[in-house]
Amino acid sequence: MSDRFVLVLAGGRGERFWPWSRPDRPKQLLPLARDGRTLLAATLARAARLASSERIVVLTAADLCEAVTKECPPGVRVIGEPVARNTAAAIGAAAALFARESAESSFAVLPSDHLIDDIDAFTADFERAFDVAARDPVLLTFGIPATSPETNFGYIRRGTKLGERLFRVAEFAEKPDAERANAWLADGEHSWNSGMFVWRSRVFLDALAAGRPRLAAPLRAMRWDDGDAGFTRALAGVFPALEKISVDYAVLENAPNALVLEAAFDWDDLGSWGAWARRQPRDSNGNVRFGEAVAIDCRDCIVVGEGGTAAALGLRDMIVVHVNGATLTCPTAASQDVRRVSDAVREGRRE
Amino acid sequence: MSDRFVLVLAGGRGERFWPWSRPDRPKQLLPLARDGRTLLAATLARAARLASSERIVVLTAADLCEAVTKECPPGVRVIGEPVARNTAAAIGAAAALFARESAESSFAVLPSDHLIDDIDAFTADFERAFDVAARDPVLLTFGIPATSPETNFGYIRRGTKLGERLFRVAEFAEKPDAERANAWLADGEHSWNSGMFVWRSRVFLDALAAGRPRLAAPLRAMRWDDGDAGFTRALAGVFPALEKISVDYAVLENAPNALVLEAAFDWDDLGSWGAWARRQPRDSNGNVRFGEAVAIDCRDCIVVGEGGTAAALGLRDMIVVHVNGATLTCPTAASQDVRRVSDAVREGRRE
Repeated sequence: MSDRFVLVLAGGRGERFWPWSRPDRPKQLLPLARDGRTLLAATLARAARLASSERIVVLTAADLCEAVTKECPPGVRVIGEPVARNTAAAIGAAAALFARESAESSFAVLPSDHLIDDIDAFTADFERAFDVAARDPVLLTFGIPATSPETNFGYIRRGTKLGERLFRVAEFAEKPDAERANAWLADGEHSWNSGMFVWRSRVFLDALAAGRPRLAAPLRAMRWDDGDAGFTRALAGVFPALEKISVDYAVLENAPNALVLEAAFDWDDLGSWGAWARRQPRDSNGNVRFGEAVAIDCRDCIVVGEGGTAAALGLRDMIVVHVNGATLTCPTAASQDVRRVSDAVREGRRE
Repeated sequence: MSDRFVLVLAGGRGERFWPWSRPDRPKQLLPLARDGRTLLAATLARAARLASSERIVVLTAADLCEAVTKECPPGVRVIGEPVARNTAAAIGAAAALFARESAESSFAVLPSDHLIDDIDAFTADFERAFDVAARDPVLLTFGIPATSPETNFGYIRRGTKLGERLFRVAEFAEKPDAERANAWLADGEHSWNSGMFVWRSRVFLDALAAGRPRLAAPLRAMRWDDGDAGFTRALAGVFPALEKISVDYAVLENAPNALVLEAAFDWDDLGSWGAWARRQPRDSNGNVRFGEAVAIDCRDCIVVGEGGTAAALGLRDMIVVHVNGATLTCPTAASQDVRRVSDAVREGRRE
């Protein structure tokens, strides 16, 4: 236990929740978890089951450090990335940090914007993952049993069974089209790639060096004093030149030692307004109404009014969100495309 | 000309433009006329063609006097009704006011929330109406040639022709259902009732006394000194007890001396967001975009963003209005029902 660390990744911008999410308040900082907590706060509560607070590190964007710190229990370390460089660089940097603090350290990687309610099952699975990682030089990924033909997740094809819910990874597969997603749901060999991992720091750095040597070398060569402040300065020296690539592409796809543990806990990536609404209570007309929401002659709609009234009249299967002084309206089926709106707004386009 | 007055009725709440219109800023105070003027300001510009400013009286709600006065040219008189009592009482009070100022006065009644662009044709028609009213003891109403089967207007069936575009009224008809509206459009005998009138003050008071004696008597019995301030105090004494009834029901329906002059000018009552949008330019996808409006994959939509962004994604024939810190979304076809939303919001209902 003493060598166990947790890395919480909190640098995302979560634009599919526009206009609730904004660049300065991305999805992980929205009160989308139970009891009105932010997803980040709920993630940190899970992290606290796995490591003491000084061994929990939150990596986020430099401009989000203040907001992120407000969500953290005392002692948790918040480190700002000087620039965003995707997950391979972020996890590699954390591996270098943890490896210096304990040569035999291992760490869990937790995205900060997913929803998991069964904290006991979560804790038990991660305990087991840490045990596996301590015993063998493996890259352990968490797979989520697929329950629907999602086209917005990466998938993992399971290989040889090594134990209860534990398999070698046969293949990492990118987001599929609808036909392939249905086939993968049916074949019983595929899991969703949750983006949660457990591994030893040195095992990860070796795998990064094998997959992306030019990414691993500068991270391994970093030297610093003065604790996290010094580490942050060291990051500023190397990060801008690093390749922007996900850990899946840079490390896992070609790693011979990747395992997948099928999660025994619930999981939802809350990837859209539609996904959020599936967890909300509905009125007798099937509408989700949240905040100052008026729905007249509406069925199966999502109406959200925060800081002002959102009124929907005569709609079917639509999303109406009024929040942060802006409005989004789209069919529920288009909620995965909301990023196109936030892109347009950021870029000042009207159409 | 010296005995001609104009009464502008500006007490309505115009709730079908919610959330743009609010109780403290009803439709007549919205910049819906050309050149960004309010409908009230445009109405007053027309009134100025018919009478000098000290003979133009605006009747409005007491709480709207300040906002209304800001729209008025110098000298125009603004009088606040102590309570709203519909058009029969308002016009009757004005008739009593004008009759005292000139025994032979006549006046035009102009709603303040309609759109009329051809001010020369308007002026010519009203000049003619004043001439007719000066010559004969008639109640002259303005009919609008029906061009579509509107179900939101009252209609006038034309009787004997008395002159070019001038007829006796055969019948005032209430808002029809769609079938009847189509029949009336086809029969060539019906005009829309515009709510604009011209008559002598005493002729109107006589007609009111014939139709609603208990409404006319207290208005005729009013005595006051100290100009409009005294008149306002006198109104406060009698208005609360008066019947709430429209001038159409109280006076015109049973009047033997009602005439209709078919207007030669354009007219739009701008009764809904849809009516407003018909006058706005559309983009190549048929969308009306106004203010901070984003429309992606949309066709034939109305998107309005004032004081914040309104974003529509993947919509057809929908209205999305974000203004005054609130949002309305409905199918364009439902824009006549927006009053149901403003009612619900005012009453604190959510559904």
